[in-house]
Amino acid sequence: MDRVAVLGAGNGGQALAGSLASRGFEVCLYARNLEKLGEVRHSRLIRGYGVESWLASLAVVTDSLEFALGAADVIFVVTTADAHGELAVQMAPYLRHGQLVVLSPGRTGGVLEFRQALRQHCQAEVCVAEAQSLIYACRLEGPGRVKLIGRKERVLLGTWPAERAVTAVERIKPLFDCFQPARNLLETGLANMGAVLHPSITLLNAGTIDRGQRFFFYQDVTERIADLVARLDAERIGLGRAYGLELDSLQEWMLKAYPQTHAVSLAEQMRTSPSYYDILAPGLLDSRLLSEDVPTGLVPFEELARAAGMELPLTRALVDLASAILGRDFRRSGRTLKRMGLEGMSALDIRTVIEGGAGL
Amino acid sequence: MDRVAVLGAGNGGQALAGSLASRGFEVCLYARNLEKLGEVRHSRLIRGYGVESWLASLAVVTDSLEFALGAADVIFVVTTADAHGELAVQMAPYLRHGQLVVLSPGRTGGVLEFRQALRQHCQAEVCVAEAQSLIYACRLEGPGRVKLIGRKERVLLGTWPAERAVTAVERIKPLFDCFQPARNLLETGLANMGAVLHPSITLLNAGTIDRGQRFFFYQDVTERIADLVARLDAERIGLGRAYGLELDSLQEWMLKAYPQTHAVSLAEQMRTSPSYYDILAPGLLDSRLLSEDVPTGLVPFEELARAAGMELPLTRALVDLASAILGRDFRRSGRTLKRMGLEGMSALDIRTVIEGGAGL
Repeated sequence: MDRVAVLGAGNGGQALAGSLASRGFEVCLYARNLEKLGEVRHSRLIRGYGVESWLASLAVVTDSLEFALGAADVIFVVTTADAHGELAVQMAPYLRHGQLVVLSPGRTGGVLEFRQALRQHCQAEVCVAEAQSLIYACRLEGPGRVKLIGRKERVLLGTWPAERAVTAVERIKPLFDCFQPARNLLETGLANMGAVLHPSITLLNAGTIDRGQRFFFYQDVTERIADLVARLDAERIGLGRAYGLELDSLQEWMLKAYPQTHAVSLAEQMRTSPSYYDILAPGLLDSRLLSEDVPTGLVPFEELARAAGMELPLTRALVDLASAILGRDFRRSGRTLKRMGLEGMSALDIRTVIEGGAGL
Repeated sequence: MDRVAVLGAGNGGQALAGSLASRGFEVCLYARNLEKLGEVRHSRLIRGYGVESWLASLAVVTDSLEFALGAADVIFVVTTADAHGELAVQMAPYLRHGQLVVLSPGRTGGVLEFRQALRQHCQAEVCVAEAQSLIYACRLEGPGRVKLIGRKERVLLGTWPAERAVTAVERIKPLFDCFQPARNLLETGLANMGAVLHPSITLLNAGTIDRGQRFFFYQDVTERIADLVARLDAERIGLGRAYGLELDSLQEWMLKAYPQTHAVSLAEQMRTSPSYYDILAPGLLDSRLLSEDVPTGLVPFEELARAAGMELPLTRALVDLASAILGRDFRRSGRTLKRMGLEGMSALDIRTVIEGGAGL
């Protein structure tokens, strides 16, 4: 039976680690900062409730990457995606031949950035895969107490080269059976709905958030704002087309993900989906909804568009606005073609590389 | 004594018309839609109170442009600036040699767009001037009741060719003595503070406004939003520099305009200026703060920047966002180089033309 390391101890990491441990896997949970784990640090107990119910005992809780990676066969990276590059560099010395690293999720260009960082620092041959999204829709309600709101039945998994996804999915099937092989890394990376939803809604409510006023992130969306989100989504779909992919629109994806909601418009879908409607807006403007989703979503969208000779005006506008309001240059820190190992390539080159026809 | 036509019967038009009539000028007030004037339509009485106090009787209230323009020596255009182009076409057949038209205010490129429209439709030689801003900070409190919050002591007036400003200022001195000749049309057009303040603050509060929640437009500004406004203002100042102008920054201008406020930051200045702090945000997203200030402010900024080979990323971002959220292409309807009669010109060409060295 595989031993598993879970890196990152937020909502998603604790849900994943607990679920696996509850089913008898030997799980090591790594957190950069153990303080944040509270009593779990000592008890190693995580309780899940909602769509599943369990009390799980982790094998190890540690802040040592060396220790966490040393014993693991499969490694789930459940940090925010803007940490992937730096984490890859830190992990590089401890990775061993044959390990499987799953970025959960990878956002856009996760495996590309991760492999590029490893390439410079790591000798071992590891398989890096990226999940399209988190497996659980969940929320930490206290230390070691995870409310499991939903569990996705189908999560795409992308790898490089593309055809390795079948093997990777087979390998993780005993752990989670929701994964399905993606056609390639762009199919997972361009299905980044967070990038479409989070920065746009956040920026159009920047004043409210910055003044510390609370509102429901999706429930309070208006038709005009939903229309703008749909325009932004159309840029993503156009980008997918330039890379040979027919992507689901945001609304199509929501209707599939939450079939219990029968909404006629995107706004109504957002306002009424049970997994969405009671989600509060972030309490601070400087939250992962900008600091993760802009550099690992909108920026790589722009970069891939540039390689394809396309312009994405709304995507660009949101990157400019997010950079200006947080006083941070997300185009510098974000997933550039260079950071993804794709510098100087055309869209056709990139498609070839992504499929595994050339070295990465 | 000059006869005056005032076109536009909003806050600014009623204040201007009333002030002139109270001092004995024969004033004709033109409104496209007389219904909006309420009882003023019949009484022709306007009451001003605040920094001035008067009860004024207008000579004429009409919805006939022909009538309004026929009798006038000086014509004040006090509509929103996005109406200038269309209004110029409507005015063209009735304008007479020697009339002075004052766009009050012109926003960015007002005279340029106005002259360009006239050029195609009008034979008469008229002088068109643009004011940097409204003379009165004012608010309509009811039909014919104008609260006069402030009166500007110094309002720049720009003309084409540039040197005509001196004559124009002399000519209107009996009517208003606040006008001073601007160096050229760009000095008035690039001092467009509304373009810097309105679309940015509106878009960063789009959700709040669209949900119908009220807030104070300036008083509720946060440091982060004020910082973004300052970055946007820096683009405007850089644009001025490309056209040989050393413009006041927004904060410098506010400190001059409202010297009673001693604020250390732009945010504090906006939150505490007596002429600003109790201004409510617009009740609708589709207000002149976008529909006027984007096409007659941010769009001509972009266009002039293009001619100078400059990029204004934040300006561009706000134009894209405003266009997307209102579902309207402001770059099409706005003051393009073509509409300003400057198509194909370099910044140097434009400077020469603006000064009057070449035909417009």
